[in-house]
Amino acid sequence: MSSYQSIHLVQRPLTHIEASCFELREHSTHALAEGQFRVKQTHMSLDPAMRGWMSADTDSYIPPVALGDVMRASGIAEVIESNNANFPVGASVMGMFGWTEQAVSDGTGVNIVPPGLPAEAVLAVLALPGMTAAQGLLEIAKPKAGETLLVSGAAGSVGSLVGQIAKAEGLRVIGVAGSDEKCRWLVEELGFDGAVNYKTDDIAARVAELTPDGVDIYFENTGGAIQQVAVDNMNAFGRIVVCGMIADYNNETPSAGPNWISVVKKRLSIQGFTMPDHFDRAPQLMQQVGGYLQAGKLQYRVHVLDGLASAIDGINLLFSGENQGKLIVKL
Amino acid sequence: MSSYQSIHLVQRPLTHIEASCFELREHSTHALAEGQFRVKQTHMSLDPAMRGWMSADTDSYIPPVALGDVMRASGIAEVIESNNANFPVGASVMGMFGWTEQAVSDGTGVNIVPPGLPAEAVLAVLALPGMTAAQGLLEIAKPKAGETLLVSGAAGSVGSLVGQIAKAEGLRVIGVAGSDEKCRWLVEELGFDGAVNYKTDDIAARVAELTPDGVDIYFENTGGAIQQVAVDNMNAFGRIVVCGMIADYNNETPSAGPNWISVVKKRLSIQGFTMPDHFDRAPQLMQQVGGYLQAGKLQYRVHVLDGLASAIDGINLLFSGENQGKLIVKL
Repeated sequence: MSSYQSIHLVQRPLTHIEASCFELREHSTHALAEGQFRVKQTHMSLDPAMRGWMSADTDSYIPPVALGDVMRASGIAEVIESNNANFPVGASVMGMFGWTEQAVSDGTGVNIVPPGLPAEAVLAVLALPGMTAAQGLLEIAKPKAGETLLVSGAAGSVGSLVGQIAKAEGLRVIGVAGSDEKCRWLVEELGFDGAVNYKTDDIAARVAELTPDGVDIYFENTGGAIQQVAVDNMNAFGRIVVCGMIADYNNETPSAGPNWISVVKKRLSIQGFTMPDHFDRAPQLMQQVGGYLQAGKLQYRVHVLDGLASAIDGINLLFSGENQGKLIVKL
Repeated sequence: MSSYQSIHLVQRPLTHIEASCFELREHSTHALAEGQFRVKQTHMSLDPAMRGWMSADTDSYIPPVALGDVMRASGIAEVIESNNANFPVGASVMGMFGWTEQAVSDGTGVNIVPPGLPAEAVLAVLALPGMTAAQGLLEIAKPKAGETLLVSGAAGSVGSLVGQIAKAEGLRVIGVAGSDEKCRWLVEELGFDGAVNYKTDDIAARVAELTPDGVDIYFENTGGAIQQVAVDNMNAFGRIVVCGMIADYNNETPSAGPNWISVVKKRLSIQGFTMPDHFDRAPQLMQQVGGYLQAGKLQYRVHVLDGLASAIDGINLLFSGENQGKLIVKL
């Protein structure tokens, strides 16, 4: 019998996520039942959605993490012991293992990682970010070649894929990000047609300049001042996909949204969505995104933290915007 | 050769609609060309959408009325002279004749009024209000029996039909209106399950009390404080149909809308629409609404003004909410 560590949610955040929300605990391993297998996690994903999972808000799309439970997260792991023929020892698997070094599973919600892909590519592209980007853009916004897409949080894990998939689909793509370095990356490395630095640019003037034919699709990841500017520049029959509001998650008083007169006049649709509602689509989406990835159309950056405990402070990088790419903890 | 009067738009409104926006002009009649017919208008409809038609806003769903043109309106008329076999003398017709006593048409966009219906029922139910209500509720919100509908502007021409059609479809219906008299009418005469007086009730408390199972569909006609309360009470996967924002049309500074965090968390859809985009659906919608009307399921009230010139001040009744039913000018 050996032991491993995991991090448990012991207190819900009020506004910001404090270290006191978590507790590092030591566990002993137990024998596997029939059909179970044990994994050693190698990489775990830190995502903005975690802020919602930590709060007690019952309106949210999946139940909150119960106090005392291991903090929820998706990750890549290696099977190290198995009573399940579908998940043999040595297999590389992907699943919601949580903030933990080891986990036991019966295979529910666990998938074998496609061979030949580095764990970082799987978490940064094929997992939640890629499926979210593809579902929101392709299935909800239904883009047409020649249309203009504006995406906020464009240097983030979802936003950078939304923009690249849209480019592959023949759209004009303008991204919104929070530093000149990120903006350069979007345009010079990812092939975006333009980028707005929401911290230093005159947002309204810059968006108007970069979208001379207006905006057909706005993919919302952040909220903040860009939201009203996006609505102001939408074309008739424009589609707004609301995937995230990261700028507001930590606010006690949510900021105001756009007035709905434009919604009538321009016949806009505003559709909120979260990926877990569409997990039945995951196999098709993964294939679609995998195709783009293998065709070299999707670049990604990872920001790797080291060791389980680094997640505790590291998660806040997502909300300050300081992460440089998909945030991953390497175990 | 005889003469008739019409009212022309000569100045666009800044905020409120002033009498100086209009000019009453006298015209001489001219001989008809082949295929044309002349109508004498008997009833014309005053609708909130007119505020948009008067402004120069090119974002709007149909072009503004040009300065100098007859003010746009739909109405019921009698054919008094005809070179068109489809529209013989004596026929009762419906069309966009404008603020005028007489008009000449080649039949484009003009329909014969179904026999046996009073002109007031046609304008109050079968024309724009009924088609708007049916399109927005049935085609966009896609209601299911047992769901809860909240409708603002519920005593208005569109709102009262939305609520009654929803009742006929088996929904629980709560209306929002601006007087106790209107609220009583909704509940006692139209069969709504409850009503909120937005001027005197604690809106949040009253909506919560009247929608114990939450709100599945919010049909927005007004904007104002009810909007945020509606969003706060929406169920997951709720549909919001934005048909009008009458409370804001005359405001220089549009009021703030709801924050979009709820849009993500509850996966709401917010869809703006205007009936003119869906005129291809008019025959089916008219049949559908006509069926409800003939089955005695749709009651209506009309507020009749007398004489062409009464439209000039009368239109403002729509924005002050002082009209008691569908606003119609009898010529």
